[in-house]
Order: sequence, then structure tokens, then C-alpha cells
Amino acid sequence: MLEFPAVPGLDDAAQARARARQNVLTKPTGALGQLEELSIWLAGAQGVCPPEPPTRVAVVLFAGDHGVAASGVSAYPPEVTAQMVANFVGGGAAVNVLAAQVGASVRVADLAVGFDLPDVELPADVVKWRIRRGSGRVDITDALTMSEAEQAILAGAQLADEAIDGGADLLIPGDMGIGNTTPAAAIVGVCAGVDAASVTGRGTGIDDATLARKREVVAAAMARAATDSGLALVSSIGGADIAAMAGFLAQAAVRRTPVLLDGVVSGAAALVADRLARGARAWWWAGHRSAEPAHAIALSELGLAPLLDLGLRLGEGTGALLAVPLLRAAAATLSDMATFAEAHVSDRDA
Amino acid sequence: MLEFPAVPGLDDAAQARARARQNVLTKPTGALGQLEELSIWLAGAQGVCPPEPPTRVAVVLFAGDHGVAASGVSAYPPEVTAQMVANFVGGGAAVNVLAAQVGASVRVADLAVGFDLPDVELPADVVKWRIRRGSGRVDITDALTMSEAEQAILAGAQLADEAIDGGADLLIPGDMGIGNTTPAAAIVGVCAGVDAASVTGRGTGIDDATLARKREVVAAAMARAATDSGLALVSSIGGADIAAMAGFLAQAAVRRTPVLLDGVVSGAAALVADRLARGARAWWWAGHRSAEPAHAIALSELGLAPLLDLGLRLGEGTGALLAVPLLRAAAATLSDMATFAEAHVSDRDA
Repeated sequence: MLEFPAVPGLDDAAQARARARQNVLTKPTGALGQLEELSIWLAGAQGVCPPEPPTRVAVVLFAGDHGVAASGVSAYPPEVTAQMVANFVGGGAAVNVLAAQVGASVRVADLAVGFDLPDVELPADVVKWRIRRGSGRVDITDALTMSEAEQAILAGAQLADEAIDGGADLLIPGDMGIGNTTPAAAIVGVCAGVDAASVTGRGTGIDDATLARKREVVAAAMARAATDSGLALVSSIGGADIAAMAGFLAQAAVRRTPVLLDGVVSGAAALVADRLARGARAWWWAGHRSAEPAHAIALSELGLAPLLDLGLRLGEGTGALLAVPLLRAAAATLSDMATFAEAHVSDRDA
Repeated sequence: MLEFPAVPGLDDAAQARARARQNVLTKPTGALGQLEELSIWLAGAQGVCPPEPPTRVAVVLFAGDHGVAASGVSAYPPEVTAQMVANFVGGGAAVNVLAAQVGASVRVADLAVGFDLPDVELPADVVKWRIRRGSGRVDITDALTMSEAEQAILAGAQLADEAIDGGADLLIPGDMGIGNTTPAAAIVGVCAGVDAASVTGRGTGIDDATLARKREVVAAAMARAATDSGLALVSSIGGADIAAMAGFLAQAAVRRTPVLLDGVVSGAAALVADRLARGARAWWWAGHRSAEPAHAIALSELGLAPLLDLGLRLGEGTGALLAVPLLRAAAATLSDMATFAEAHVSDRDA
């Protein structure tokens, strides 16, 4: 049976040193707000104070189609998933552009893309992760067999291992899949114990009639959910892409590697991952809060506060990539700012 | 009499081209949220689409003491202003560290620092801007004579000119001055027409008793405010540092140079600047929203939405510097992302 090793904790001593150092840097105590918390977390994850600004950032994009797309829950046709995978490979998508801004690598894994493109052959390294062609329609059937779900989770864990073994010091999960906010919303609804109306959003930008239909699909999926384990949950109402992302997030924690989460799909995968590997959430920070209502609920359930809130609703890891400079800046305050004593500045208690 | 030339508008045609281009890039319409608006604004400011990511970012730090510090409104002693100016020159402050992260230059101008340091002589280029030693105690007297206020505004305009003539393509105003959130709060209260309790915050981190005292000082200043012009306002209840920052912001708009605003002091200076040069606000974007209550009120009054909301309350330009990567990323989406047609991706209307 699928089992992750115990998740190690962050380094408390390094965190205590980082907190103490923030308090003697030349600024009022707490004046850098969330940036201070972020710096302390990074010190704890790296086990050293000051921590190194992450320079080897690896995005892994989990692509897959979803049977629910056929029931009209998206503004875009399902062949867009495959077309966007080709766009990622070609370097023209938002994730490529934003990754280049921060020097991050981008790797694409096709877990369950449903369609072939007439003129494009995707690279072998992209398609070799494929578990099946499209995950099941979760309002009426399972997304995956238990065996497929396990295989997808292990594929995600392997992708984390390969990134970390390749030297990555920060991981970002990205998603691509027409229809994927539907299973994501259902997973968040089940995990947070809220109703379908609260978690269903407009995804890529659907109209009122489509939103009403999507809400019914989410409610039907939630009613079908198997909740006895993370594996059972993602098998019943997830999908191969979400299962793999959950495995990726769980393995990152096992391997002591910090993660910036992205939008609602990574939020749903994180809820699954924290069930696969209890305590994994300590290794993740929320890059942003997306416009999807289920995302705020997922972050609240995970106890994570987002760095950005820019009304993004794109996925692909874009919101997390935009937050990378904040993480680097947070690390730099600990390593590069002068203390009150060094700069001969009077502290409030002086 | 002090008068700024008319403020030019942004380039509507460049903005229209940017908006049209955002709508054909390979992502759902509007999926990049505020980043899309930011890219359109930058195109309008530069008069070109796609705009260049700003690479020559110039921070100008306006330093000055305030008579109100003597009435116990701050958690720190007033000599900290001069000590921090020395820290800026030495490169050890948060603004230096965050400027280095984005390759920005930092220039310090002493407009009204009140104290000399026993062991440190500040560079001539820093002290040559000095209008007076400490601005007046605004709860009982004017901050500046009208002549001093005019001189300070012109100094700020000259600092903007020198930065722009030196090649800067993005300006950031920073502030340093123990007690400066008190006049800033009073200016915001007067401009927004709200009471002293609504605009008075904890600044560097004051306790309840100090907060109550600060509120009385803000109320007394608001009652004294001369409101017939931006010049009169900043003379009556501002300070030389705030007046200079207002001149800097007004001149940036006159010179068609975009600005990222920082915290509550720059918010107050922006309200003054928009009175000095009507329409100047079109050239500014809000880098962040600080923890000071007056800041949200100032931004709302200016009609600006902040990029970041991280609980910062430091000033120095730090919140604006943290937002620089977002501006660069926004520009990059316009220049580097593929369109639906280029990438052979189906649009929603396809």
C-alpha cells in the first residue's frame, strides 16, 4: 500500500535564530510584516540562518483532461489542454514568461491529456508520465482506479525527487487541464466540509448558466467522494494530474524542500497531500490567493496566508512564480540588513 | 507663485493596443487579473506597446524630523532619523537591501533632519537639500513657512528632474522621519474628510496611551489645516520632507515618468501632489497597502489599488521596491507571451 515516510519538521533552532535576528535589524519590530514570517520559515526549511535566497526554482506542470469538461463546465474546449502543453513546450505561455523573469526551470508532465494534436508530437519526457487519456467524469464515476491513483501519486513523487536531485531549492507545482477547477472545487468542498455553492467558481470565465451546471456537477462529485484516505479521495473525485501533484507536494516535504503553492488546483492537491503525508503543509507557503472561491477556503483549511492577491485565475504556477522575488527579498533582509548595534541606531528600548 | 505645468495624459492609443493584446494572449481573458491592468498602464505611460520592463529604477529618500515627535507620538527617539540617514548612506537599511534585489539606485536627501550625529558627517549631496532643522510642531504651529514649503517642493521637483535626466524609467519615493506618520495622517484626514480617529495608526508600533496622545495631536493638526492649496496644506500641517516628496511626485507626472508609491507618507504626499498638479495621479501606481489605517483611506481617495498587502509598516520605499518585479512581469507578459494564433491554441470563441 502507498505510504510516505514521516514528514520531518522545520528546524526550530534556525527559526528561533531568524526571529531573533529580525528583531535586531534596523527597522521597527515587525515592520516588514509577512516578509519577516517568510524569512523565518525559509530559515526553518533550510535549517540555517540566514537562509540562502532560492536560486534553483523548479516548476513542474501537471497536465490532464477531465471527463467533466464534456458536461459543459468550462468556457474552453477540451483540446486546449493538449494545445497548451505544446505552448508550454514552445515557451509561449504565461508560465514560461514568468519563469524566465525569476530564472526558474519549467518541466511539463502529461498525466492524462485526452487528445493528440494533429501536427505536433510532444516530447517523450512529457508524455512518458501519462497514466490514462482523460480522468473519469467525477459526477458519475471515479476519476481513477485506486491503482491508477497510486501510480499517479508515485509519478508526482518521482518528479519531485528528480527536481530535488537535480539541485532545486524551491519547487512550484503548476496545473493545466480544461475542467480542472471542477474536481478541485469538489475536493476542497469535501475537505473543508462546505457546500458545492461555496466552492464553485467561474474558472476560466464561465457565464451564469454554465456556473449553475458546474455547481450541480461539483455537488454530485462531492456526494460520490470516498473520504477514508487521500488516495481514495483523489481516486474518486480527483484526477491523474491532481493525484500526481499531491504526490509531488508530499514528497517535497519528505525531502525537506520548500514549496510555493499556486492557485485552487494546487490548493486541492495540497489538501490531498497533507492526508498522504501528515504535516507536509509545514513545508509549503501560499504564493497567492486566486479569484476562485474554493482557493481561499483551501488556504484557510491549510492554515496558510497568501503572499499575493492580484485577482489571478490562470493556474500553471503563475501566481507562485510572481511570489518568488518576495521569498528572495525576505532571505536578503536576514543576510544583508545591518543590526541596530552595527549601524549605531538607537532601538526603542535604548 | 509656485505652479507646475499641465500634467500630460497617458497615451490612450498605446493603452488600447495593450488591452487588445492582453485579450489575444494564450490565457483566459482577464486571467492575469491586476497584472493585466498594470501592463496596460505601463504601456500608456511609456507610449508604446509592448512596454519595456523598467530597468533603471530610482529611489529617492526624503528625510526629515517633525516637531510632533517631541510630544511623544513615536516609539523611537528623534535622533533615529539622522542615524537612519547614516544607515542609508552605509547601505545597511531595508531600502538598500530591497533596492539591490531589483537593481535600483538609492539617493538620500536630508530636507529637515533635526540632529547632527556625533561621529558621522553626512555626504554633501545628502545635506545640501536641507530646508530647516526639523519641521514645526503641527498641532500648535505651522510645519513650514509658505516660502520654505515652496522651496521644499522645488527641491523635490529638482530631485525628480535629476533622476529622470539621469535615465530613470521608474521612480520610487521613500520616507524617513521619526514622527512622520502624524502629519501624514492629518493630511489624509483633511483630504479625505474623515476624522482623526480613523486615520491615526500605530506607526512604528506605539502602545495604547501613545496612540491616544497621537490621535489628539492629529486632531489638533487637522483643525489647524489651511486647505486653499496643496502648498498651503503642506505648509500648515506637513513638513519639508513631505512637501519635497509632493514636488517629486508632481514633477514625475509632468515629465511623463511612472511612479510606484510606497506607504502612508507617500500616500499623503500624493494627495498634496495631485493638488499641486491636477491629474498627476494617473502616473502613479500603488506598490502596496501598509498597515497604517490612513494609507487605505489615501489610496481610496486617489483611486489606486495596491499591488501588495503584506502588513508592511516601514516606509523608506520598501513596499514599492517589493512590487517592482510585478511591474516587470506585467511588461514581460505583453512582450513575450504567444497569442492564440501564434501558438495554435483554440480561443473560447473558436
